[in-house]
Amino acid sequence: MSLIVHKYGGTSMGSTERIRNVAKRVAKWARAGHQMVVVPSAMSGETNRLLGLAKELAPERTDTSYDRELDMLAATGEQASSALLAIALQAEGMHAVSYAGWQVPIRTNSAFTKARIESIDDKRVRADLDAGRVVIITGFQGVDDESNVTTLGRGGSDTSAVAVAAALKAKECLIYTDVDGVYTTDPRVVPEARRLQTVSFEEMLEMASLGSKVLQIRSVEFAGKYKVPLRVLSSFTEWNIDIHEEAKSGTLITFEEDEQMEQAVVSGIAFNRDEAKISVVGVPDKPGIAYQILGAVAEANIEVDMIIQNISKGGLTDFSFTVHRNDFARATELLKSKVLPALGATEVIGDTKICKVSIVGIGMRSHVGIASKMFRSLSEEGINIQMISTSEIKTSVVIDEKYMELAVRALHKAFELEQSAA
Amino acid sequence: MSLIVHKYGGTSMGSTERIRNVAKRVAKWARAGHQMVVVPSAMSGETNRLLGLAKELAPERTDTSYDRELDMLAATGEQASSALLAIALQAEGMHAVSYAGWQVPIRTNSAFTKARIESIDDKRVRADLDAGRVVIITGFQGVDDESNVTTLGRGGSDTSAVAVAAALKAKECLIYTDVDGVYTTDPRVVPEARRLQTVSFEEMLEMASLGSKVLQIRSVEFAGKYKVPLRVLSSFTEWNIDIHEEAKSGTLITFEEDEQMEQAVVSGIAFNRDEAKISVVGVPDKPGIAYQILGAVAEANIEVDMIIQNISKGGLTDFSFTVHRNDFARATELLKSKVLPALGATEVIGDTKICKVSIVGIGMRSHVGIASKMFRSLSEEGINIQMISTSEIKTSVVIDEKYMELAVRALHKAFELEQSAA
Repeated sequence: MSLIVHKYGGTSMGSTERIRNVAKRVAKWARAGHQMVVVPSAMSGETNRLLGLAKELAPERTDTSYDRELDMLAATGEQASSALLAIALQAEGMHAVSYAGWQVPIRTNSAFTKARIESIDDKRVRADLDAGRVVIITGFQGVDDESNVTTLGRGGSDTSAVAVAAALKAKECLIYTDVDGVYTTDPRVVPEARRLQTVSFEEMLEMASLGSKVLQIRSVEFAGKYKVPLRVLSSFTEWNIDIHEEAKSGTLITFEEDEQMEQAVVSGIAFNRDEAKISVVGVPDKPGIAYQILGAVAEANIEVDMIIQNISKGGLTDFSFTVHRNDFARATELLKSKVLPALGATEVIGDTKICKVSIVGIGMRSHVGIASKMFRSLSEEGINIQMISTSEIKTSVVIDEKYMELAVRALHKAFELEQSAA
Repeated sequence: MSLIVHKYGGTSMGSTERIRNVAKRVAKWARAGHQMVVVPSAMSGETNRLLGLAKELAPERTDTSYDRELDMLAATGEQASSALLAIALQAEGMHAVSYAGWQVPIRTNSAFTKARIESIDDKRVRADLDAGRVVIITGFQGVDDESNVTTLGRGGSDTSAVAVAAALKAKECLIYTDVDGVYTTDPRVVPEARRLQTVSFEEMLEMASLGSKVLQIRSVEFAGKYKVPLRVLSSFTEWNIDIHEEAKSGTLITFEEDEQMEQAVVSGIAFNRDEAKISVVGVPDKPGIAYQILGAVAEANIEVDMIIQNISKGGLTDFSFTVHRNDFARATELLKSKVLPALGATEVIGDTKICKVSIVGIGMRSHVGIASKMFRSLSEEGINIQMISTSEIKTSVVIDEKYMELAVRALHKAFELEQSAA
């Protein structure tokens, strides 16, 4: 008998019919002898509906406790879906009980709308499991030291599920979603894309941060920190498929180095076109310029992704970085009006028509020449590389966005990802 | 500076536009120097929507903790409307904070779906009020000793508001609703019906229990127990009417005997046609028959209203009582199959086409002949009385339901209720 955590996204909980299917699937696992904890999201559309009402009443933050109230409001979505799932499980003949974050409790800090989990008390949940109950815990939310309801931000239910699995030392945390696993790249771009049976925690972390929307990045970080075996699989298979088959489906995110040794050098190709490039040109090369430029950007609450400073030529250097496209106009304006005069730099130039393409693979650590193979492959397609950034397990390039699909396909082929690693 | 509690029903909270109006009204009171606590219901339709989803998943109770989950589910309605009201108040420039029942906490017993309030901690709320915040407290819900969410049952928000007002020793609890006060009788039946400026707690209790839907009876009981001055008034006046005018509008439910002395003998005519009459005929008149008959009915969880036992004739008596029409078939069947044989009674007869009409007035205590005036008035209209029941401040009769409007109009006129008491 193992303790298993299931997490179901909003689409999987999107109607009473789907909730009934979730209940049947969970009941199947429980009847197979597992202790079951389920973390559901709100019914799809519900969080947007609630926050839409708030926006009608106050389009913008009008009080310091505005965010506190948004959390009180949004948290009702998961409380309702959790209670409904408990009722559906009871209708399947199971004993089931649902808990809101504060009832477990899942303790967080007080950063409303983006709180961080600090601790989870497992006493109450364990007592229920030992009494043969399926325990449902609201995703996305917790409670702070002052008994205020907090939420973890969008996608926070993944994080809740992993944190609960960690606190309960679950054998596995199964993230049921609308895709059937993690792919070598997006199958809509490369039809030959292959589902990975396993992917290392570090690779998943890079893929999540590079735009693969399968898992929320914080949940992957959490899984890594607490070594929670995590599996991404589809909630749209028939609920009554063989449980052994289901338990092996999807993609397992692993933590053991050994399992990786057999793997391909590169596991996947990630990409996104959400970013824009900004360069400050002709910056006098002296200590403190990175802080002068990025400090101003950070103060304006703009997140920066890639940062590149070229070598100095004649005492002048160029400083480039990428931001989210939504922040591009604001960042450019800020640099032109405030930073450029103070720095004595020549100009600020920007480009929103870029994309970032990355190869990710834990195997890269021990293999030389991977990056150069990437660059050669892109060069053979006539694709110009604008920026390069590397880490131990990934290499990212910024290129013209019109070449994105071409680049992804070329790299997928160059690293032979369409073939099984086995 | 007084502490005032406002309660708004679901219709008053039915849309963002209406919530904004509630916020403007509350802000007006706060700006006039009052410490404000607001208890809102869920947005109209929301509780039914949520319970409808539950019904789709499990049409009937399937587990001992089914009711617990219904409460978890239904409680989200008030949590959402409370947060929305806080946001609307913030948009009006007020500092506002919302609390769910468990956060106050409002402690209840564990009778899910019909819990009773046991205590309310006023510490947190007082600290907010002293800091100049408007405090919003979810109606309808509380928390039991095991940190389970409980609800007080339909209409429980009235009770929440009165209980909060009692705990905070509020100067007045204003129940904003879709009618503008308590009337001498239903104006749809008697166009001359007059709004009462004041009504005694005991009269209100009788009127509430007799079918006047203005206030939930438990909230009136609570107000009586803790002597909370309660005012029923309309939420559909313009929010910006003069606050002194608003503060005197509606109907005040009072506890001081003195104020009653000036009042008319009869304050109002209540009626309902939700009941059915059952008679057990030819019962051998011996000790224990009431228990034998009503014990069986009570065990089947059927509530009994009027109970009448006629004097014995020839060692046999007739025993009559009224139940809700929904319970009529079940009660009759039960009596025929179980009780009749054991009692040795002749037969069980019933009638669903009845109604109950009552005159209510605290002045009846000190006036003789009120009941006989009622009976004469009905007799003059040719209305036959089937059952009579009296208490200190009311006299009720059961008559054929087709005479209901006629009886109400005749009594309203006979007791001169269309004229002002002043």
